[in-house]
Amino acid sequence: MKYSEKMMNALRRSSICIGLDTDIAKLPEIIKEKNDAVLAFNRAIADATFKKAGAYKLNFAFYESLGEEGWIILKESVRHIRSLSPDILLIADAKRGDIGNTADHYAKAILHDLEFDSITINPYMGYDSVEPFIRDPDKGAFILCLTSNPGSHDFQYSTDGKMTLYERIAIKSVDWNQHQNCGLVVGATHPDEMRRIRDLAADLPFLIPGIGAQGGDLASAVRINFNGDYVNAMINVSRSVIYASGGNDFAEAAEKAANEMYAQIEKIKKENKANNR
Amino acid sequence: MKYSEKMMNALRRSSICIGLDTDIAKLPEIIKEKNDAVLAFNRAIADATFKKAGAYKLNFAFYESLGEEGWIILKESVRHIRSLSPDILLIADAKRGDIGNTADHYAKAILHDLEFDSITINPYMGYDSVEPFIRDPDKGAFILCLTSNPGSHDFQYSTDGKMTLYERIAIKSVDWNQHQNCGLVVGATHPDEMRRIRDLAADLPFLIPGIGAQGGDLASAVRINFNGDYVNAMINVSRSVIYASGGNDFAEAAEKAANEMYAQIEKIKKENKANNR
Repeated sequence: MKYSEKMMNALRRSSICIGLDTDIAKLPEIIKEKNDAVLAFNRAIADATFKKAGAYKLNFAFYESLGEEGWIILKESVRHIRSLSPDILLIADAKRGDIGNTADHYAKAILHDLEFDSITINPYMGYDSVEPFIRDPDKGAFILCLTSNPGSHDFQYSTDGKMTLYERIAIKSVDWNQHQNCGLVVGATHPDEMRRIRDLAADLPFLIPGIGAQGGDLASAVRINFNGDYVNAMINVSRSVIYASGGNDFAEAAEKAANEMYAQIEKIKKENKANNR
Repeated sequence: MKYSEKMMNALRRSSICIGLDTDIAKLPEIIKEKNDAVLAFNRAIADATFKKAGAYKLNFAFYESLGEEGWIILKESVRHIRSLSPDILLIADAKRGDIGNTADHYAKAILHDLEFDSITINPYMGYDSVEPFIRDPDKGAFILCLTSNPGSHDFQYSTDGKMTLYERIAIKSVDWNQHQNCGLVVGATHPDEMRRIRDLAADLPFLIPGIGAQGGDLASAVRINFNGDYVNAMINVSRSVIYASGGNDFAEAAEKAANEMYAQIEKIKKENKANNR
């Protein structure tokens, strides 16, 4: 199936992306004791939350820090989530980027062998470092544009007088979107800039980190990306869902947190529709 | 041992960095049949070349495309090279970069668990994405500054009228070099710009890709970075050494290619000394 179709199915399902930033040190006691604790945790969280999720995002740092075992957990987590629903988008938050022939190997490893639908990539090295990830119309990428962290101010705002670097990246990404499989990472901590990027890249789905712990605002993220039909963004939430409780009720608490976020998004969409009538 | 000391020992040994971009599809027949073909190849290449090498650089894309097995090969390759000489620098060419608490996990995985000395990092996300890799004075990083690929022109040259983005990154990296453990990646395909970056970051060791297949010039790279005592750069060479022969004599051919490069560098250094007298 074309990535653009998968993305549309996922977005119509839900704009919630659950970040499985599973840190073995933070697992509830009841899970910690298991042999395959991280995988068991991911499965339990997915089982509890998938009805309200459009995507899951697995940040590779948390899995690489488990060594070769981490690679197996990535593979098994993808397999499990895929079995829950074919309409959920699986995003590898790997922030890769390397010269062309090398990037080919990353694309093979992550999009094909591990079977993720999509990957986050760092565009600093330019087009030939991005192209291997968007060559296959069945796979796609979210290109780092304006990130949610404090360091986003170091280089991303540098400007040539006409436009900032993040704006230039947004415009280039629209050019690169020949297979309708490019998206942008835009942090929720910069709502004004997000509006500007939405104007520059009207059709590109965004992946939005920074809600919750980092201080980004859910309502703005929804309003800016709601097109009257669906929210053209995957809004990531991690700690506030997956660690909603550190006790035995961690899965129920995660479910409740995802349900609440879903209800909030629906409410904001409705208000927005009413205002636009 | 402090990273700055390790780096100095490695640079005084040799400025040749051998890139173990080991592609299973390109291995000689004699090795291909072995069970652990990639590891056997890495060991044979290291055994044949280490006397003339200051560093080995393992590009993670080639190992990730082998799945969990790739992780084990990385670990075993590091262990083997370490056993050949304690003065060789081991560089993880992983081009990582993520927000602070996530980057911590990458640093743990790659610098501590896999025991690399150094890692290449992508600075697009700014200081908090770099800091976890340079926090430990015993470990270090090469920060992408100006890369050797065609795509380097897409964003790295963007300028605010006063300076380009790659110059800004060089200047910031000098600031960040509190533990004398920052270096810069500067492609050999841009000799004029390399000279400029050397002026901006007088003391930072460079990691120089782009010699050979990509068309970069060895002589300029040596001249620009020779301080009269040693060349303050690791000059990477990969395909022309590791695939010098595709036959049974692949290790001897690699040794010969490394010896020739070493002799060339020594010759250029001597000429340079003579010219400066």
